[in-house]
Amino acid sequence: MLPVDKIWTPDLTVDNAVETEVKPVSSDILVSQDGTVQHSIQMYTTVVCGINLFNYPFVTDACPVALNGWSQSSCGLRFQYGNISTVGTSRGEWRTLSVELHGNENRLDRNYLSVTMSINPFNTVVTLILPSVLIMVADLVSFALPLEGGKRSSFKITLVLSFTMSLLILTDSLPDTGLCSPLIRYHFCFCLVVLVVSLLASMIFTRLSVDGSLFCCTLLKLEATNDTKQDISLNGVATVCADVSTEVASLQKVVTFLENMETANEGSKKMQLFANRFDKICFWIYFCIDVIYTMCFIAITRTEFCKINNLDFWSS
Amino acid sequence: MLPVDKIWTPDLTVDNAVETEVKPVSSDILVSQDGTVQHSIQMYTTVVCGINLFNYPFVTDACPVALNGWSQSSCGLRFQYGNISTVGTSRGEWRTLSVELHGNENRLDRNYLSVTMSINPFNTVVTLILPSVLIMVADLVSFALPLEGGKRSSFKITLVLSFTMSLLILTDSLPDTGLCSPLIRYHFCFCLVVLVVSLLASMIFTRLSVDGSLFCCTLLKLEATNDTKQDISLNGVATVCADVSTEVASLQKVVTFLENMETANEGSKKMQLFANRFDKICFWIYFCIDVIYTMCFIAITRTEFCKINNLDFWSS
Amino acid sequence: MLPVDKIWTPDLTVDNAVETEVKPVSSDILVSQDGTVQHSIQMYTTVVCGINLFNYPFVTDACPVALNGWSQSSCGLRFQYGNISTVGTSRGEWRTLSVELHGNENRLDRNYLSVTMSINPFNTVVTLILPSVLIMVADLVSFALPLEGGKRSSFKITLVLSFTMSLLILTDSLPDTGLCSPLIRYHFCFCLVVLVVSLLASMIFTRLSVDGSLFCCTLLKLEATNDTKQDISLNGVATVCADVSTEVASLQKVVTFLENMETANEGSKKMQLFANRFDKICFWIYFCIDVIYTMCFIAITRTEFCKINNLDFWSS
Amino acid sequence: MLPVDKIWTPDLTVDNAVETEVKPVSSDILVSQDGTVQHSIQMYTTVVCGINLFNYPFVTDACPVALNGWSQSSCGLRFQYGNISTVGTSRGEWRTLSVELHGNENRLDRNYLSVTMSINPFNTVVTLILPSVLIMVADLVSFALPLEGGKRSSFKITLVLSFTMSLLILTDSLPDTGLCSPLIRYHFCFCLVVLVVSLLASMIFTRLSVDGSLFCCTLLKLEATNDTKQDISLNGVATVCADVSTEVASLQKVVTFLENMETANEGSKKMQLFANRFDKICFWIYFCIDVIYTMCFIAITRTEFCKINNLDFWSS
Amino acid sequence: MLPVDKIWTPDLTVDNAVETEVKPVSSDILVSQDGTVQHSIQMYTTVVCGINLFNYPFVTDACPVALNGWSQSSCGLRFQYGNISTVGTSRGEWRTLSVELHGNENRLDRNYLSVTMSINPFNTVVTLILPSVLIMVADLVSFALPLEGGKRSSFKITLVLSFTMSLLILTDSLPDTGLCSPLIRYHFCFCLVVLVVSLLASMIFTRLSVDGSLFCCTLLKLEATNDTKQDISLNGVATVCADVSTEVASLQKVVTFLENMETANEGSKKMQLFANRFDKICFWIYFCIDVIYTMCFIAITRTEFCKINNLDFWSS
Repeated sequence: MLPVDKIWTPDLTVDNAVETEVKPVSSDILVSQDGTVQHSIQMYTTVVCGINLFNYPFVTDACPVALNGWSQSSCGLRFQYGNISTVGTSRGEWRTLSVELHGNENRLDRNYLSVTMSINPFNTVVTLILPSVLIMVADLVSFALPLEGGKRSSFKITLVLSFTMSLLILTDSLPDTGLCSPLIRYHFCFCLVVLVVSLLASMIFTRLSVDGSLFCCTLLKLEATNDTKQDISLNGVATVCADVSTEVASLQKVVTFLENMETANEGSKKMQLFANRFDKICFWIYFCIDVIYTMCFIAITRTEFCKINNLDFWSS
Repeated sequence: MLPVDKIWTPDLTVDNAVETEVKPVSSDILVSQDGTVQHSIQMYTTVVCGINLFNYPFVTDACPVALNGWSQSSCGLRFQYGNISTVGTSRGEWRTLSVELHGNENRLDRNYLSVTMSINPFNTVVTLILPSVLIMVADLVSFALPLEGGKRSSFKITLVLSFTMSLLILTDSLPDTGLCSPLIRYHFCFCLVVLVVSLLASMIFTRLSVDGSLFCCTLLKLEATNDTKQDISLNGVATVCADVSTEVASLQKVVTFLENMETANEGSKKMQLFANRFDKICFWIYFCIDVIYTMCFIAITRTEFCKINNLDFWSS
Repeated sequence: MLPVDKIWTPDLTVDNAVETEVKPVSSDILVSQDGTVQHSIQMYTTVVCGINLFNYPFVTDACPVALNGWSQSSCGLRFQYGNISTVGTSRGEWRTLSVELHGNENRLDRNYLSVTMSINPFNTVVTLILPSVLIMVADLVSFALPLEGGKRSSFKITLVLSFTMSLLILTDSLPDTGLCSPLIRYHFCFCLVVLVVSLLASMIFTRLSVDGSLFCCTLLKLEATNDTKQDISLNGVATVCADVSTEVASLQKVVTFLENMETANEGSKKMQLFANRFDKICFWIYFCIDVIYTMCFIAITRTEFCKINNLDFWSS
Repeated sequence: MLPVDKIWTPDLTVDNAVETEVKPVSSDILVSQDGTVQHSIQMYTTVVCGINLFNYPFVTDACPVALNGWSQSSCGLRFQYGNISTVGTSRGEWRTLSVELHGNENRLDRNYLSVTMSINPFNTVVTLILPSVLIMVADLVSFALPLEGGKRSSFKITLVLSFTMSLLILTDSLPDTGLCSPLIRYHFCFCLVVLVVSLLASMIFTRLSVDGSLFCCTLLKLEATNDTKQDISLNGVATVCADVSTEVASLQKVVTFLENMETANEGSKKMQLFANRFDKICFWIYFCIDVIYTMCFIAITRTEFCKINNLDFWSS
Repeated sequence: MLPVDKIWTPDLTVDNAVETEVKPVSSDILVSQDGTVQHSIQMYTTVVCGINLFNYPFVTDACPVALNGWSQSSCGLRFQYGNISTVGTSRGEWRTLSVELHGNENRLDRNYLSVTMSINPFNTVVTLILPSVLIMVADLVSFALPLEGGKRSSFKITLVLSFTMSLLILTDSLPDTGLCSPLIRYHFCFCLVVLVVSLLASMIFTRLSVDGSLFCCTLLKLEATNDTKQDISLNGVATVCADVSTEVASLQKVVTFLENMETANEGSKKMQLFANRFDKICFWIYFCIDVIYTMCFIAITRTEFCKINNLDFWSS
């Protein structure tokens, strides 16, 4: 048994490490009589490793840890692996699925441990995907709300506000990646645009159901004023009549008033029917877009984009 | 009295430690005449330990601290515990309930200190569970709000917004765990789905109370237009009548107008009654689901899921 | 003048420290001819100290710093304090009020510096207490809003949303403490419950002012349908009459229609009066609860709960 | 050229430093033949320095860096400054305006570098002051919204909610200072109180415009019931009349109904006029308070409060 | 093969570094027979470097890393670069585009590596620019909502609230820079002002559509009261009439009532037309401002402001 610093121990290097800290477990070392040295070290290594977050939160990727002896040209240290055993694989957010030794036949010093990890998608699904899906469904069903009085618009703007909240959570929890943005970002982007477009549509239809049209509203108003003028001239005639006819005239005024109300009601009803038809068309377009988008989304998640070559530190 | 580095002191290792820092309390050591060495050290150890957060925030779990002398095969250091006393048990978020020495008869070097800790659930209950329960109750009682005009929908969407805020707090305060998600996450997930489903139901019932039906609204409108046509033809007949009959006809027009209003009112009332009946059924279904869920939830918290074996570092 | 490492300097220990770092101000030491050694060190000490946050943000508490020479049984180092002077007392969030030397007659090595600190309550009062009080007052005054149409409910739910925002700030700024939760947490808890209960009450009263009752609404509707039937039979009789009587009948129909409206109005007015009376009672109950709560709250802050014994590290 | 540790180099101390780290730029030192030693060091110093944040975000303050040789009583090191040049003055949030050498004639060892820094106020103005001013203006103009139906109240509560959001940003970005709170905190405090008070006023005026008065609403209702009783007795008399008089009576009933509606309308109009007059008075009071507050605020920012003596570490 | 500390290795310094840490890859060094020394080191350097964030999130800028041998006056170390190869360029938020060696003909020791980096703008565009643009578009289209009843105001205040949320995200994600604020901050500032101004305009127009004018509302009310007085005097005259004339008078009262309603309707319609015309003018002004702003914004992003000279550490 000897202190560690009294004996030469081999240097281990991790080729793709950013920072490596080596600590002997004990400050003593065990040297048996036949020259075998028993020494155990703890190595804390931070490795540069690009993990493909494209399908986030469904991520399974492997990271190489190029643990080798240090060697320069021909002279150096060959490192021979024994058995590899992993401890504490399921602690923390990332679960270690397997640790395998990958070798390279041509170059003996290019062995690496491939650490396959996966993330538990449940949390992200609950926090990010579920609310976004629910908000989209609520937006689709909100076509059932009446157009009149801007009710639907105020509902939809609250939906947009809720979605902005979710966006805030997304920004907090999702790391920025350089090369290849996670699909979930595009999803949020799409959702936001769809929400706002449906909001704009509902606002325009509200206008449509009130005015009948967006730009030629002046024409309708001219007609309306003509009607009222006619009404006034009739009143002028009625006041010439006698006692009984006064009564009749009075009654007729009442009738005229009620008929005016009725025609105005019918006019506004026509406009509403007009707007409702547009609204229904818009709903079905929206529904189709949602269905197509969902299918595309699922199709894309099946494909494999953005493979990152984590072994490029040796290509240099 | 001697400086520490002049004398050999035994190495202590913690088998399941991620990082261990050993500091002598003083740089001097006390050696008495009979060879007894008095030496006190401070050991800052970060231990890998899986705590079962399934019943979070009601968590009580034990962590092993495998404090042993370093030993290899037969040759090594045996470590004998004296008395264990704990200091400062109730500081911080986690309270240390007890520290016990667990031994292993077969292997003398496999003793460990079992540190039992519990968390104070009050804070989390106030910040997370109480708001979620109150929002659910408010959602249940919001069936008392009138369906007409989308009032209830705009109320419920604000509830959903408030709940999203709570979800934001949850994301901030709850750690991500790999193996076994805390029950509270499922609870929030369930609450969010129930809130949105009840929101959707209220929107559909709003539509139902206005149109009578969701899809066959075109039929009802045809009937309505028939009525108005009949009305117009009656008016045409009435204008042929004489002076007195003009008066009568005028009055009848008024009556017809009022009767039309009344029938329209009755029609919309029928639809509302229809929608209200559905609404009431929906309320009782919702109520039952809430009661069943609450019972299930309490039942699950009583059981013990997700036990984590923290001694697996020795099994390797 | 000598380098520091050429001369023995006494070790100082802080008994309740978590981490202590000692740095000499200069790497040289001044030794005068009469053997007096002038040496100044900087000591960065992190001390375990439980501060009673019960009355947060009005906190004034003392922390012991057990700065002593290292000593074991009889053999060791006695430490004699000179004058204590404090520098930079009012920097940062915590202000140091006083630093006093507390001794122990029986045990000479158990002296400690008692550092009394207080926090500036202004910031927390502005950020946490003021908004919560204002929201409670707004909730109380919101009884002035009309019950009809769910206006008050939508106002109150926005209040609840604002309060959830404040809760978010609270969670960010207030540390979790193990033993004794700050009173402000209970305050927020109480406020949230009161806000939601008053929200529920306003929703139920809205229902009450529309339907007259929560459960026997079916009875009222039966009566209403009887009235309309009677009305229809009267119409049937009226159509048999002659020309003049047709006129009278027509007029009577109008009168009947208006009287129906009036009775319906009176009925709904009665219900509203009924609901308003309940509403008024509820307001006074709410007001009383608020007044009693405020008095209790002030009374509790005067008492002293949750004293923490910070000298328990010596009791072991 | 010699390694650094082979030659004695003078110790530099910063008297008001919390932590100082000295690194030689190179591990070699240049000694010329005439005994001149060229040595360059990098000194990372964290200095205790109270910056007056009262006028935040318009802050310009100076920090002393007491860079001296270490000296005790008479024996020690005198330090002579050469030229001072600053590099990288405009990087980061704080801009270094000037670095000046301040001496003390009496005590030669009490020289210090005064580092004058200022913060770029633009960011804080955009993030904090601009939204608060805009919200206050929106609150002032919201008196233009109609009182009826609680529209204005629901608008104002959303304003309060937006302001709470700004408060959240404030809490995140502004540090807590012990002695002297920044003026902006008082500003936010004032804004919040004014917003809520105007919200309360609008709620009370809404009540006033509906009921005419807050407390004597029971009197008005008694009158109303008397009117309806009289109306019913008139009806009883009318039914005794003959055929023609029935017609007249019927008509009179219609007239009575309409007159009742008209008087009710006039009554509610009178109340609204009453409430509107109060509302207008309130608006002008609010406007005056805002103008006075703005002038006071500008006046206070011109004065100099809360000067911090950063040289108190020498007074001990 | 020798341990590192047995042989002299040259010191490398980075002139503009804040902190440099040098680690040998291995603790052994390879010395071949012809005196060539093979040694590889890892250098972790934190460099002071001002990156021009004016066009954020479209940022591409270069940072000098002045890696040289240490040298003083004439005596020192000349450093000769071999080939430069980069590894792991696309990891993290910033992508390294190129690393080039820039020399200085006059001063051989003033070589530096120019590291050109760019940020992936996609994330920021989704999180910050897209929501702000969508909110502005929603605000523009919200002119389609009806002015009456404060619907549009409550919609716009929710938009302002959503925008404040985005501002919160901005504050979190964008660093504070001393010299030159990113254009996106001015953009947010402009958006917020435009949103609030359009909110104020919509509130004033709401008032206008109700009262006809903002200040002379008292005049209109006097007229209204004159009309009702006239009406009452007519009633007084009518009660003197005989049986038939009573009938006529009754009818006339009804007619008068309806005519009053009609004129009131026409008056309010006139005011609404008046307000709508203003509203339309305002919409086009707003539209023009938005178009001009967009063009200016794009023009400014093309120009190059705020170039930072990162080589100023040598000018001293």
